[in-house]
Amino acid sequence: MTPSVIRSDIVAVHNGQHSRRTDTVVVEEPLEIRAGDHSIAVTMRTPGSDFELAAGFLLSEGVIHRRDQIRHITYCAPAGQPQQYNIVNVHLAADVVFDPQRFSRHVYTSSSCGICGRTALDQVRASLPASPSSADRLVPRDDLLLSLPEKLRQAQTVFAKTGGLHAAALFDARGELRCLREDVGRHNAVDKLVGALLLEDALPARDTILLVSGRASFELVQKALMAGIPAMASVGAPSSLAVALAREFGLTLAGFLREGRFNLYT
Amino acid sequence: MTPSVIRSDIVAVHNGQHSRRTDTVVVEEPLEIRAGDHSIAVTMRTPGSDFELAAGFLLSEGVIHRRDQIRHITYCAPAGQPQQYNIVNVHLAADVVFDPQRFSRHVYTSSSCGICGRTALDQVRASLPASPSSADRLVPRDDLLLSLPEKLRQAQTVFAKTGGLHAAALFDARGELRCLREDVGRHNAVDKLVGALLLEDALPARDTILLVSGRASFELVQKALMAGIPAMASVGAPSSLAVALAREFGLTLAGFLREGRFNLYT
Repeated sequence: MTPSVIRSDIVAVHNGQHSRRTDTVVVEEPLEIRAGDHSIAVTMRTPGSDFELAAGFLLSEGVIHRRDQIRHITYCAPAGQPQQYNIVNVHLAADVVFDPQRFSRHVYTSSSCGICGRTALDQVRASLPASPSSADRLVPRDDLLLSLPEKLRQAQTVFAKTGGLHAAALFDARGELRCLREDVGRHNAVDKLVGALLLEDALPARDTILLVSGRASFELVQKALMAGIPAMASVGAPSSLAVALAREFGLTLAGFLREGRFNLYT
Repeated sequence: MTPSVIRSDIVAVHNGQHSRRTDTVVVEEPLEIRAGDHSIAVTMRTPGSDFELAAGFLLSEGVIHRRDQIRHITYCAPAGQPQQYNIVNVHLAADVVFDPQRFSRHVYTSSSCGICGRTALDQVRASLPASPSSADRLVPRDDLLLSLPEKLRQAQTVFAKTGGLHAAALFDARGELRCLREDVGRHNAVDKLVGALLLEDALPARDTILLVSGRASFELVQKALMAGIPAMASVGAPSSLAVALAREFGLTLAGFLREGRFNLYT
């Protein structure tokens, strides 16, 4: 299988000095995701946790909602070709009905107003397994939230040296790290994490906090909602649509979580 | 039209103090891109420079290569709906032939080995208007490269306060800023920049340096190559496939450009 990092010859430049050395570079390779033998996506990802990535992607997209909707997951190779571990097929339970064509259309299908932020929010509502109730809300204590970035850094020992990876970490309500996944793509990191929870049959992830190393976009908040995660924090800024989505569905959203401070958007 | 930033009520938490205030949040909204009336993509973008984004996307995807392949660009609204400025149609010249179906397939079409990094590189080769020649190479001086991040920061006055935007800046070989575009999405920022150059009929962008605020991924290097940009620098880390692509096509690639140092990968 492809490694997650490789060594690369570089020239490091500092204070006018050039020095040749080898450095660690994070691997980026395409992965084709298939569901029931239908090709539905190609994503550029860091190899590793590929089954979790495929499972999490299907959950995020609303194709599946529960562990028992997956029969098993396999790597595929085209007929007569060597196995490259770059195509993953998720074999679905017989009762899972989905339209593979949906993934070949780039338009919003339930649009009553053309296309806009409102349309995007309505799509999330339509794909959520259940609307979050106020009983599921979670507002972590300040000091607990502030402690999370350092816990993430400590856990990121393997890949931290490349500086090239986005991280997604799930903490329980006491601030204990439950799951950490990394990837060159921020969406992939969250899909891997959510997929890991799904494969452990640990969804919905009530009473947890998702921390992402970058910014909070609409799609990342959507993935948290699909997994039933009630609180999310980002080291970077959230977008307008991420804030709107979090407010609409009662997800606690903190941004700029670093250096002893953060902003609460909900 | 939708603004690029909005005001949002937040609670800022610092040193145990909670203070209510309004903060600036960068807008994220879907944009549907059409080419010759065919819907080919929906991207989550920051409103502004939408025509440049659509033009740059088509260039990056190899649908067009020259300014005169675009007749004009318009906003569309669904019949009977208000104009939301979220659908852009690029009207193509009569001689532009492309297969809209290509954008509804998620598989590599010229694959002889299944799917892998090699396939991705071969796809770029097939879509490049001309292979870069060694005469086009550009290796900027150290001090010139090191001066670019500060120039980018100074130019980012409008949106810098949100902290939520990726930036792409083009400099000439003397280090003068020629073009700057920002977006919630890193790919969009580069597509807007490349689209602006295309609409000015300023491609290929020989003797220029592209600086991106985040990491250097395969797709960002691909976009630089499609625009004929010979050198690229990123504030963050490059990926393995970004390095491989830059080496294959003779693009100068610098990473970790910050605090007086950088790494050269090619």
